[in-house]
Amino acid sequence: MEHERPNTKPETPNTSEFHYIHWLRSQTTAYPRVLVGPGDDCAVLTPSQRPMLVTTDMLMDGTDFIVSEVGPRRAGRKAMAANLSDIAAMAGIPTSAVVSVALPRQDSGFGIRDSGNLRTAGEQASRLSSSLNPESRIPNPGFAEQLYLGLRDVSDAFGVPIVGGDTNSWSGPLVISVTAFGEATERGAVLRSGAKAGDWIFVTGPLGGSIRGHHLDFTPRIREALALHSAVELHAMCDISDGLAGDLNHILEESNCGAVLITESIPVSVDAVELSRTSGKSALQHALGDGEDFELVFTVSAADGEKLLRSPPIVGLVKIGECVESGLWLETAGKRERLQPTGWVHEM
Amino acid sequence: MEHERPNTKPETPNTSEFHYIHWLRSQTTAYPRVLVGPGDDCAVLTPSQRPMLVTTDMLMDGTDFIVSEVGPRRAGRKAMAANLSDIAAMAGIPTSAVVSVALPRQDSGFGIRDSGNLRTAGEQASRLSSSLNPESRIPNPGFAEQLYLGLRDVSDAFGVPIVGGDTNSWSGPLVISVTAFGEATERGAVLRSGAKAGDWIFVTGPLGGSIRGHHLDFTPRIREALALHSAVELHAMCDISDGLAGDLNHILEESNCGAVLITESIPVSVDAVELSRTSGKSALQHALGDGEDFELVFTVSAADGEKLLRSPPIVGLVKIGECVESGLWLETAGKRERLQPTGWVHEM
Repeated sequence: MEHERPNTKPETPNTSEFHYIHWLRSQTTAYPRVLVGPGDDCAVLTPSQRPMLVTTDMLMDGTDFIVSEVGPRRAGRKAMAANLSDIAAMAGIPTSAVVSVALPRQDSGFGIRDSGNLRTAGEQASRLSSSLNPESRIPNPGFAEQLYLGLRDVSDAFGVPIVGGDTNSWSGPLVISVTAFGEATERGAVLRSGAKAGDWIFVTGPLGGSIRGHHLDFTPRIREALALHSAVELHAMCDISDGLAGDLNHILEESNCGAVLITESIPVSVDAVELSRTSGKSALQHALGDGEDFELVFTVSAADGEKLLRSPPIVGLVKIGECVESGLWLETAGKRERLQPTGWVHEM
Repeated sequence: MEHERPNTKPETPNTSEFHYIHWLRSQTTAYPRVLVGPGDDCAVLTPSQRPMLVTTDMLMDGTDFIVSEVGPRRAGRKAMAANLSDIAAMAGIPTSAVVSVALPRQDSGFGIRDSGNLRTAGEQASRLSSSLNPESRIPNPGFAEQLYLGLRDVSDAFGVPIVGGDTNSWSGPLVISVTAFGEATERGAVLRSGAKAGDWIFVTGPLGGSIRGHHLDFTPRIREALALHSAVELHAMCDISDGLAGDLNHILEESNCGAVLITESIPVSVDAVELSRTSGKSALQHALGDGEDFELVFTVSAADGEKLLRSPPIVGLVKIGECVESGLWLETAGKRERLQPTGWVHEM
């Protein structure tokens, strides 16, 4: 560990860095809401007309991914997608994001240039994107470039500009912290607290076994959430990051009600089935308890639920149960058992 | 390094966690602009009426502080202050912040509870603040609590609610990532790009040697920036994080002009003088080149400069030079030398 030191040697700006900043700025000029993008002390954005959504997630090498196995691009991809998934969980429209990273100085095998401890969005962005500049003449794609490409893979897909950030390098493992912004639609943000007894409960896709790869490559359910929110009145919603049972339980706690899930209706992913061959758990247990599916779980009135079943606005929609007065239950062939938020079933 | 794994075992919520979330929510209800604070997938904020400012800074143990020496409270303090300093640099009003942390599992000596990889603002906040709850019955203040207190020391001083975050623990060193939000005043955000030849250049306080402690304990110049912005028309401004010469050079690059600094007028801090006794550098070199003073450097018209000298709206204000057509110069007893952005002087 180095001794405590504020930066005493900022790198002298040079022509190529200038070029990078200009290049990077050109990446955000397509977004009319970005008044000032990377390159100043703060980004400046036009004010939102509707309530603003903010979420932040920090992902670390060794916990959220193993960068030596998956590479920096997929790590960057996951970091952006996990944040946009939280915007989706409110049925929000993502508007922009900022990214802070601590890049590993050693063991990356990608030849990271030590960027010191840079303080401004422009410096950060210019480093992150420097290799992207076609004129940068860096022969091999670098670690930071790949990371930035991964972030952009997802943010570009949803029209979300990266308006600033902070790039650091250090002797520790890769850390990526994304803060994403969004705005509610005219129907308002969907909270966790609006579920009612009698509501029907849905999920947007198959669950479980995401450790086999889905947790890196999932698509945040932004479009699905907006389509649902426009078709019906969503009472409560959450993205599935802790596992179906755990995240549904968050809704129940906040809404002060209970739920009964129907075993046969839980959509079990192929990965959950595959994993169950060796894990000692059933595929259903994986679907109920595994984290990081990044699908949405939500509740609507029974009338709206019927409407969704008649003409589903998205593919993959599955009704998995109904809200009741209290408790979290799993019903199999008419028999109810207590379901733990961890996904375990305890027979009564 | 552990093997790749999404969370498969979210902790079962219990009564005390509920209590923490409710406690934490009570901390943000005093802020009418926070529609939904910690506890959902996103925070929901009332839209800003004026352009929105966003900045993010990530601070790491061993680079920005040595937590074993300074403790988590000062580390948290610095993380919040460094971010608010960027809002000050735009003459903005800070409105809220989110905080992501990676807490060290080992070697902290503070007995951190392993919080897993929590995903929601409520979970994060409840962990960060859990020991703050007077009913939590945790006998000794913990690492996370002290960190949170440090963050709050600064955010509370400026009326800034912490509206969400993400708390993780891992085997690596402490990482703190703050994203701060603000809004421009009716006079607009002050960019780096507005300096003009003929402008006078000011700083808000003495410079250099911040490594001796100031870099941990500084006050972000929010109030000073607002007072200045209300008294005169600020042309360009930047906070001094890379060193006076380096950060002024950012302004010059963005504004496409030059500057002459007057040696005798550079305010040299006591710390710079003290450091020069052993560093092999002069106190002036420390004042010109040392990073993390977190004072502001700004330019105004000569007429506004005279006005500031006649009736300074803040204490500590010093005129250090004037903008010219090009180059960065240091003038000593009428003789000009080239000044490097690193703070070094090269005689012509």
